[in-house]
Amino acid sequence: MGEIPKNVMETLARDGKLVGNIILDFLESRKDETELHHQMMQEYAKRAGKSLRPTLCIESCGALGGNPKDAYRVAAALEIFQQWILMHDDVEDDSDERRGKPAIHKMYGVPLAVNAGDALHIRMWEFLFEEKNSHKPAKVFEILDEFAAMATRCTQGQTMDVGWVSRNEWNLDYSDYLRMCELKTAGYTFVTPVRLGAIIANADKSIFPIIDRLGFKIGVVFQIQDDILNLVGEEEKYGKEIAGDLWEGKRTLMLIHLLKNASVSDKKEFLEIMSKPRHQKTEKEIEKVLAMIKKYKSIEYAKGVAADLSNESKKIFNNELAPLMKESSHKQFFVDIADFIINREV
Amino acid sequence: MGEIPKNVMETLARDGKLVGNIILDFLESRKDETELHHQMMQEYAKRAGKSLRPTLCIESCGALGGNPKDAYRVAAALEIFQQWILMHDDVEDDSDERRGKPAIHKMYGVPLAVNAGDALHIRMWEFLFEEKNSHKPAKVFEILDEFAAMATRCTQGQTMDVGWVSRNEWNLDYSDYLRMCELKTAGYTFVTPVRLGAIIANADKSIFPIIDRLGFKIGVVFQIQDDILNLVGEEEKYGKEIAGDLWEGKRTLMLIHLLKNASVSDKKEFLEIMSKPRHQKTEKEIEKVLAMIKKYKSIEYAKGVAADLSNESKKIFNNELAPLMKESSHKQFFVDIADFIINREV
Repeated sequence: MGEIPKNVMETLARDGKLVGNIILDFLESRKDETELHHQMMQEYAKRAGKSLRPTLCIESCGALGGNPKDAYRVAAALEIFQQWILMHDDVEDDSDERRGKPAIHKMYGVPLAVNAGDALHIRMWEFLFEEKNSHKPAKVFEILDEFAAMATRCTQGQTMDVGWVSRNEWNLDYSDYLRMCELKTAGYTFVTPVRLGAIIANADKSIFPIIDRLGFKIGVVFQIQDDILNLVGEEEKYGKEIAGDLWEGKRTLMLIHLLKNASVSDKKEFLEIMSKPRHQKTEKEIEKVLAMIKKYKSIEYAKGVAADLSNESKKIFNNELAPLMKESSHKQFFVDIADFIINREV
Repeated sequence: MGEIPKNVMETLARDGKLVGNIILDFLESRKDETELHHQMMQEYAKRAGKSLRPTLCIESCGALGGNPKDAYRVAAALEIFQQWILMHDDVEDDSDERRGKPAIHKMYGVPLAVNAGDALHIRMWEFLFEEKNSHKPAKVFEILDEFAAMATRCTQGQTMDVGWVSRNEWNLDYSDYLRMCELKTAGYTFVTPVRLGAIIANADKSIFPIIDRLGFKIGVVFQIQDDILNLVGEEEKYGKEIAGDLWEGKRTLMLIHLLKNASVSDKKEFLEIMSKPRHQKTEKEIEKVLAMIKKYKSIEYAKGVAADLSNESKKIFNNELAPLMKESSHKQFFVDIADFIINREV
């Protein structure tokens, strides 16, 4: 894939550091009764993430005529959201690592990890309730409703995703996968951060349907690209285990395509392999599935879907959202990141 | 133990049914994308609980001069809190049953159960944010802050409780146990429900320190009594597995007393037995621990502590809280339930 443009990386790093410090100061200021609790609450906050979500919030506020500084705290709350939901995601997927270190339940066990995620979730709301000191009540409630809608969507998407694996569901259509991506990823990665930036910038309400249409599409493009990279990427560049999704049994556009097009015997073999839990699969079986993906050109199919969605995203961004943005470094960030996602070759 | 007075039972049943219907209507009205998600969200809501917390909220509102009806929704939110935190508690303790049916993770697996608890947690806030349609913003924020403080306390207490077991910590003082009870149980069982009732009734702020002093004490009494019943109760009446706490390794006042008073050899044997996880302990070992508890009169010690706290609670209730309550069926509920807890023989 193409490299992320330098100025995008710099903005992510700068905004990420800003919100990271706000979060650590906030968590540090809270009385946590026990050292163990205090430590768990900060476990993921002390590890640097990509900061995509808080950066989108801050830069959209700036690009839509607001003062980016006014968005710092809400952007920090988005990052707190990311941290607690990752704690629970890691338990749910039994992940080994997160941001280059052991996942929280590998350090403290599942019971304390679930509780730590809850504790940080509650702290997120406490942190957001303090917005009453900076904004009028109506705006605070608007922000709170955005967060609740975002979080609800994530849990709905997670039920689909985890439910398919735990119930060994393969009777899925393309639309099921696309809907799951919208709910689980696109909403909290693109839609809500930009909507929050717009709210803080006091942007005209007519912008919201544009953000929604663009954000849900570009978020799905991003997820499909990520799923493809998981199959074909170079481990070093991609930063995750290659074909990890196949070991895990994750439902992707490629696998749904494969099932729709496979011969009866290939389909039977595929289902036999993919019905096994992770540790019962063999290298050879994973290679067989990879060969089927190649045989039925399922990656090509997914690339085609991503390309169509990219083109639609490009049109919405260029014709509808970009004209509403002020010329500025903030707008440039959007132009560059949209360009990167829409045009990246996977 | 003495039976719960009939009118207390009736009030619990009536208020419980009221809030139960509010919750089911609310959950039913939400679009849940998938049937699986919808079903999990309602799993515990469809099982009748004791309804102690919502009833305390409604009756305190009435007893303090408010209209009990104004407290219905906030009382329902307390019950939603109870439901999602039980989902996560059941995962954390690996409980088999809840309210007479399988625990949620025994039905759907741990990943979906953790996610369902999160989803219901978010719905609780969504439900509370709607209070903006019934109250002035300042009061809504007051209610939200109460909920956040309550939930934070629970997670802090849970870290102590679960942390002691998972790290095999036995170097504990009486004050550690009492503090854990205050945080984990007393706050959300007594303090917050009554404070919320007072807020909705527009009670004078001077009542809050009284509620806090009384609620934290009576909540600890309640927990000590529960811990004693777990050792000596009749299974049928108590409704839980007898000595289940010993199998689980739960730290109680009796065990802390035992460790402080045991001979070197008894202490060594106790620690050997109690360091084992549940399924590695034998009936014979549990009987040995029960014999030690008897030998060192640890239950008598705990009864003494509970009696002292009961006397203090009685004084606070009779001299400080009861005089602020209007003569009414609501006040009578408080008199009866306080009397029951303070005087019950365990």
